[in-house]
Amino acid sequence: MIEDSWVASHILDFLILGNNFGTSEMRAIWSEQNRLQKQVEVEVALAQAEGELGVIPAEAANAIIAKADATKLSIEHIAEEAAKAKHSLMSTINALQKQVGDAGQYIHYGATTQDIVDTATVLQLKQSFVVIERDSKQVALELKRLAKQYQYLPMVGRTHGMQALPTTFGFKLAVWLDEFIRHLQRLSEIKQRVLVGNISGAICTYASMGKLGPQVESRALTLLGLNTPNIGWQAARDRFSEYASVIGLISGTLGKIGNEFYNLMRTEINEVEEPFSAGKIGSTTMPHKRNPAALEGLASLTAPLLKSVALIHESMKVEHERDAMSWRAEWIALPEINLYISAQLQTALAVLKGLKVNSDRMLANLSLQNGLLLSEKVMFEIGKRLGKQTAHQLVYQSAMKAFEQNRPFKDILLEDPSLNKEFTESELDTWLDPINYLGSAPEKVAQVIQYAEQCGVLA
Amino acid sequence: MIEDSWVASHILDFLILGNNFGTSEMRAIWSEQNRLQKQVEVEVALAQAEGELGVIPAEAANAIIAKADATKLSIEHIAEEAAKAKHSLMSTINALQKQVGDAGQYIHYGATTQDIVDTATVLQLKQSFVVIERDSKQVALELKRLAKQYQYLPMVGRTHGMQALPTTFGFKLAVWLDEFIRHLQRLSEIKQRVLVGNISGAICTYASMGKLGPQVESRALTLLGLNTPNIGWQAARDRFSEYASVIGLISGTLGKIGNEFYNLMRTEINEVEEPFSAGKIGSTTMPHKRNPAALEGLASLTAPLLKSVALIHESMKVEHERDAMSWRAEWIALPEINLYISAQLQTALAVLKGLKVNSDRMLANLSLQNGLLLSEKVMFEIGKRLGKQTAHQLVYQSAMKAFEQNRPFKDILLEDPSLNKEFTESELDTWLDPINYLGSAPEKVAQVIQYAEQCGVLA
Amino acid sequence: MIEDSWVASHILDFLILGNNFGTSEMRAIWSEQNRLQKQVEVEVALAQAEGELGVIPAEAANAIIAKADATKLSIEHIAEEAAKAKHSLMSTINALQKQVGDAGQYIHYGATTQDIVDTATVLQLKQSFVVIERDSKQVALELKRLAKQYQYLPMVGRTHGMQALPTTFGFKLAVWLDEFIRHLQRLSEIKQRVLVGNISGAICTYASMGKLGPQVESRALTLLGLNTPNIGWQAARDRFSEYASVIGLISGTLGKIGNEFYNLMRTEINEVEEPFSAGKIGSTTMPHKRNPAALEGLASLTAPLLKSVALIHESMKVEHERDAMSWRAEWIALPEINLYISAQLQTALAVLKGLKVNSDRMLANLSLQNGLLLSEKVMFEIGKRLGKQTAHQLVYQSAMKAFEQNRPFKDILLEDPSLNKEFTESELDTWLDPINYLGSAPEKVAQVIQYAEQCGVLA
Amino acid sequence: MIEDSWVASHILDFLILGNNFGTSEMRAIWSEQNRLQKQVEVEVALAQAEGELGVIPAEAANAIIAKADATKLSIEHIAEEAAKAKHSLMSTINALQKQVGDAGQYIHYGATTQDIVDTATVLQLKQSFVVIERDSKQVALELKRLAKQYQYLPMVGRTHGMQALPTTFGFKLAVWLDEFIRHLQRLSEIKQRVLVGNISGAICTYASMGKLGPQVESRALTLLGLNTPNIGWQAARDRFSEYASVIGLISGTLGKIGNEFYNLMRTEINEVEEPFSAGKIGSTTMPHKRNPAALEGLASLTAPLLKSVALIHESMKVEHERDAMSWRAEWIALPEINLYISAQLQTALAVLKGLKVNSDRMLANLSLQNGLLLSEKVMFEIGKRLGKQTAHQLVYQSAMKAFEQNRPFKDILLEDPSLNKEFTESELDTWLDPINYLGSAPEKVAQVIQYAEQCGVLA
Repeated sequence: MIEDSWVASHILDFLILGNNFGTSEMRAIWSEQNRLQKQVEVEVALAQAEGELGVIPAEAANAIIAKADATKLSIEHIAEEAAKAKHSLMSTINALQKQVGDAGQYIHYGATTQDIVDTATVLQLKQSFVVIERDSKQVALELKRLAKQYQYLPMVGRTHGMQALPTTFGFKLAVWLDEFIRHLQRLSEIKQRVLVGNISGAICTYASMGKLGPQVESRALTLLGLNTPNIGWQAARDRFSEYASVIGLISGTLGKIGNEFYNLMRTEINEVEEPFSAGKIGSTTMPHKRNPAALEGLASLTAPLLKSVALIHESMKVEHERDAMSWRAEWIALPEINLYISAQLQTALAVLKGLKVNSDRMLANLSLQNGLLLSEKVMFEIGKRLGKQTAHQLVYQSAMKAFEQNRPFKDILLEDPSLNKEFTESELDTWLDPINYLGSAPEKVAQVIQYAEQCGVLA
Repeated sequence: MIEDSWVASHILDFLILGNNFGTSEMRAIWSEQNRLQKQVEVEVALAQAEGELGVIPAEAANAIIAKADATKLSIEHIAEEAAKAKHSLMSTINALQKQVGDAGQYIHYGATTQDIVDTATVLQLKQSFVVIERDSKQVALELKRLAKQYQYLPMVGRTHGMQALPTTFGFKLAVWLDEFIRHLQRLSEIKQRVLVGNISGAICTYASMGKLGPQVESRALTLLGLNTPNIGWQAARDRFSEYASVIGLISGTLGKIGNEFYNLMRTEINEVEEPFSAGKIGSTTMPHKRNPAALEGLASLTAPLLKSVALIHESMKVEHERDAMSWRAEWIALPEINLYISAQLQTALAVLKGLKVNSDRMLANLSLQNGLLLSEKVMFEIGKRLGKQTAHQLVYQSAMKAFEQNRPFKDILLEDPSLNKEFTESELDTWLDPINYLGSAPEKVAQVIQYAEQCGVLA
Repeated sequence: MIEDSWVASHILDFLILGNNFGTSEMRAIWSEQNRLQKQVEVEVALAQAEGELGVIPAEAANAIIAKADATKLSIEHIAEEAAKAKHSLMSTINALQKQVGDAGQYIHYGATTQDIVDTATVLQLKQSFVVIERDSKQVALELKRLAKQYQYLPMVGRTHGMQALPTTFGFKLAVWLDEFIRHLQRLSEIKQRVLVGNISGAICTYASMGKLGPQVESRALTLLGLNTPNIGWQAARDRFSEYASVIGLISGTLGKIGNEFYNLMRTEINEVEEPFSAGKIGSTTMPHKRNPAALEGLASLTAPLLKSVALIHESMKVEHERDAMSWRAEWIALPEINLYISAQLQTALAVLKGLKVNSDRMLANLSLQNGLLLSEKVMFEIGKRLGKQTAHQLVYQSAMKAFEQNRPFKDILLEDPSLNKEFTESELDTWLDPINYLGSAPEKVAQVIQYAEQCGVLA
Repeated sequence: MIEDSWVASHILDFLILGNNFGTSEMRAIWSEQNRLQKQVEVEVALAQAEGELGVIPAEAANAIIAKADATKLSIEHIAEEAAKAKHSLMSTINALQKQVGDAGQYIHYGATTQDIVDTATVLQLKQSFVVIERDSKQVALELKRLAKQYQYLPMVGRTHGMQALPTTFGFKLAVWLDEFIRHLQRLSEIKQRVLVGNISGAICTYASMGKLGPQVESRALTLLGLNTPNIGWQAARDRFSEYASVIGLISGTLGKIGNEFYNLMRTEINEVEEPFSAGKIGSTTMPHKRNPAALEGLASLTAPLLKSVALIHESMKVEHERDAMSWRAEWIALPEINLYISAQLQTALAVLKGLKVNSDRMLANLSLQNGLLLSEKVMFEIGKRLGKQTAHQLVYQSAMKAFEQNRPFKDILLEDPSLNKEFTESELDTWLDPINYLGSAPEKVAQVIQYAEQCGVLA
């Protein structure tokens, strides 16, 4: 089907690397073939509705329904004709008319190009929606499973890149789970508002369809499984921007997860590892390298996706009853957004399912600072005896001393004459044990899991 | 209160031009003074909650409630101390402690900087939310009023910048009204999810507050009128991004309206004019200029606002339990978003309330193409007689001829021997009257108005 | 060559619409095939350099030079193997080794993946550079031709969308010509800095190549026609960002030109028309429509291109000696930038070459405001007699009166007792003739043309 | 001078945090006061030029020169009047006229608002340019100093976040130095092209100035120390975008440096530490925290700066002879870009000057992987004996084994019967010593330093 001279120029379409940027499932949805398929479906539904309502002859409608078949149209031929007409849809309509025969003149009756193209795009969006909701739910379920599994596994919590306090690995996961529950709620809220078609003629007034216009639109959209708008939206593109915004939020979380695991997988931290299979090559030159290739992929797709979100946000500025300028931005941005997120969701699933958790190393890292990790705990305990401010000052001095001299915090505290009469060594050992300073971390994990199970979005 | 050497460097803070970029009402919400005010309110609510729950002495809590007073703190002094400590909140806490006296040591008990700063920001967001919902509703009401008023006023509909078909001015307004109704629904949907505080200690585990931590948080947030999260969100910033996204959508519509009126006000189109008052200067050098200054302001603020939206989207990528990098982006972007939208909403209101509609010119423009505006109508009518395809071809030829020769479409049609036997001149006159080809435009206006009134968001 | 199941998902790769977003010439440069071609060229040059310098056996180098042939490699096969190895280049190297036979083990000797991929990308960039410089020069030459042709053609100058003062069409074109001359100077300045390869091993230290490393790199890059860096840039991506910035500037000008002609082509202004050919379809439903399709294409590609520029700017943030995160952004953004600009340049050329200039309408539009266009002139002349401030006030009042009453400015001025004694009607007629108030517009056109011809960039 | 009710709403203008986002030096340049100052300077230079050329009376020009004084104008008063006139400059001109007295009517003679505002902005840009060039040079000098100091200090090189090969700290610094040399070259190249004023009347035709217009402009700009354009650029804003692009590149490098040191300062890596001073507070609750506050500031400002760059890129799309929409974007973006970069440059300087380099830890980290860091070296040496492919396979297996079993690479290699006959233990020790595998790192450092010293930009 493809001309010899044809070449793929965008990495989303590369055979070698394309799968790192989009899934084949989503690529099929946004393929040129499926675009044509959906446009034909819209033309057919329009004809059927107009046939039923008597706007065109019923037999013409039936012929169109029977004969229109996108799979038998030649994209190459349509492309050649489109180049001559300098129009994006006319040659498709001509090809369809030829395919249908005499009844072909009733194809596209009363419609304008944008009716067909926009409604077909929403049909593609509906297909994408199914994939994204499904995979987002799967990601949430994996996060729930892992949060439960690691509810009590202690690890270092870090702020500003520095070790801060103990937490549990499950807590980290539960924060993300809670975030994904919100994403699923958002998807649910916007779904009916976004999946709305539009068939209302040149400037949305239905003038060419006569008084039956609104009924034709409503019936055709029902046939297509889409909602009917209050009023045409050729000049109101907020739905696409809203959809893109929510996908942008999901991508933000996924990129964060990728970046977090990438950092936790650093040689010097080494608390998790992405799934590794024999045969996987880290480097063409360094045999020992086990690189976070999947995680880098996961982390890196948020940036381009957000650029596409920004592009589609700008496209809200339509001039007059419509223009082609914002339209073209949508043709670029909408597929990109859906493709990048499809790869991120699938990569996240693979990573979460096969994640290797180095609990030994997590424990070891808790001791890396020789006890300084518990400085807050020590301060609060001493504060109960000496007052918080005095305690902060004294413990701060001891902490800085331990840091500068690279010695155990415990030893410094035991040496300090202003402090060491306030506690026994055994008390100090208790304070300095990370396991005793997890706060409500495990309880919060349980609370999030319970909410996830009860709120309905995972059903 | 302000040092002599102090200078405003951002246009939002300029005396001369600042009001074109943000309203004084919103500027007050995001002012340094109010930021401090809200931070103190959070510290006080925390103390009250801790006092009630016995985490700190009740009398200490009462003293804090009684004495903490942001209005009496010196921002200059806090700023000087902050520069020394290289910390964004410590000097505020110190100043508060000094203000409160002995009980001051119980201020900020168990909390971390980000608890206070984030929750205070949400309090500012809550204030902003009220303003934006109020003004968005007002814009919707103005659009509804105007849509009703101009439901039947015919004007040219334009696509690709070119005259296309007749529509009504009310139809254009109703498309925007429908869009604003969606915006109000979005605001309503996200409100409870966004207005959520966070007081859970260094890494959200409440370790420093003991087992009562979650209760302390819940009580403090209730006192502040905010919702309580399932789990701390120091590392989950999606709420801010979600809020920003919705504001971005509203701004997109407002920018579009500004741009639309700007174009309709062009000397050569001249269908509307922004409110003009005597004394308003168009140009320092051209006395005749009546510029669309307000409209340019309205149209131009969407671009910077969307940049701030993009910035805050990126800030979702927090590292580990938190970092200060995404935080700093929020401190820039959140106020910007709220300020720009405040100016856009107020400008839109002023424009809509004082809009001058040149209905004479709208009518005149309908005839500018010597009848070509109705080529579709002619084609459909002739199509009923000669078949659509033949009709399209013949009418296309006539239209091109009328255009090239700059002659009335009617004359060309009447001359054409393949066409002129298909209709009488009187029929042709009927077809060429724009008023007869408004389609369902007025009905759709009514439908949107009805929906707006019944859906609840304007109540 | 392409699997049946393969589908193009990005509009740049669509048969029907792709040519509106990128040229086939540029698509070939950034195609997967050419990417492979350039990677093989780099491996071959590396082998040749290493053979010459004795790092690998000379006969091995010769065998590699003789047998490596990208056109005979199967991208499908490489893609399958790459999926298994989860690595972007290893399977290409394996395929090459197989092709070359025994000497194959000396392919990629001492190099790292990024050496090959980055240097190949710069080779693609070098090809793009030729195209972009060539077409930018052509655009500049067209602008020069048109500026000269229309040096004296009077038309309305507009500010804030409103008619302001008379200018000439050539002046408008000369502003753009001057801008394009700057673009050509920029391209010239950055060329040698940007077209720099990099072959220095795993972390740019040449460790795997021994002490001859720097010589190997220098020789290989010379063979490829690229410059040699002072130090490896795997972690310094500013060259790509710099290149993208300059392309962004060119795109900004082209988008502006597209938008300007789009506005001048509006039905109500109608001063220019994009090239129209018989058979071109404006609308599927409105026979009279002659849409600015090319201009919308020209104007609309700046927004996505600038998003790609922004993406690549972000990719400057490489971690450590390199990471794959910024890399992936480049793989997306660099081809996009080059493809979008290729379409913009070619569209601009077509538009400029075939532009229809409606000089009659330009003249007619000069009178559209009944003389108000010359209010500044009148003010200055009267100012010479009554003082500038008095003149501004009186002329302002007359201008507002003429506008409000929609009457000729001349009549209002002649009626005004404070003014009409200051001039004769004949003087007034002179003042109100646009041709007398073109200022230095034609001289400035001449000056820009002269500069363009002398500065060297058009040679 | 500031009203009581005045509040700062943008963080750039906050007393407490503003210094983290911009320097006071740069804030002064972009202050409202200095904006006014520069506008007055332009008006004065215009008057002087017009006086010299006889366009206005010489004595009027002299009076303007003598009496116009921005420091004595009341910004509050101008702001109040501007609100009435709804114009951005008129009230400034009025205030100036009042200040000057009778000659005041000759102020702004023949000029348009944008002449003054744009040229004043370029004057501010010129002041910024001095600061940025100065500080960029200082950063380059610090990098040169450090690169020399640490030319031979071995440390781990990392790719994909994982330990890869040994390098030297000086090498890392030299890469940045080379990048900064390029930045200084860029600044030098664009300087004369960017610092160009514009005084040419309402639509750049000088119509209001008569035939002497071009001379007036040229003389006034010379007086102001700015270059004169070939043709007016009210509708050609590429210079600002070009400037912003280069600043964006500098910011990209600075953000990368901040991020790199932030990562190297992680508790688990701990190879560098930002300057720490007693009294600096890491956390309000964790006494031990020494946070990378300066580095987070340095790293975090690139994102907002790049948003402003993107905004100004978009503003290239001016309509017709000018509009106020792109203008307003510039008023936001240009000061932001200059302010953020000023803070980044100063922070970078402070960090580089006070950087604590933990060379002990760098050495320790080289051994963290038990010898795997040298897997490439081992592979190449064994490859010389067994062939590269066999060597890669065998060494890969050993490396994976060492990793999985967490045992010394040396032991694994010595145990392997296919390998251990190929080398002596002493040979192996030599191969596994990082110091022997630095490649040409130190030589490249020297080369960059030499280039930096000879290329002229540091003079």
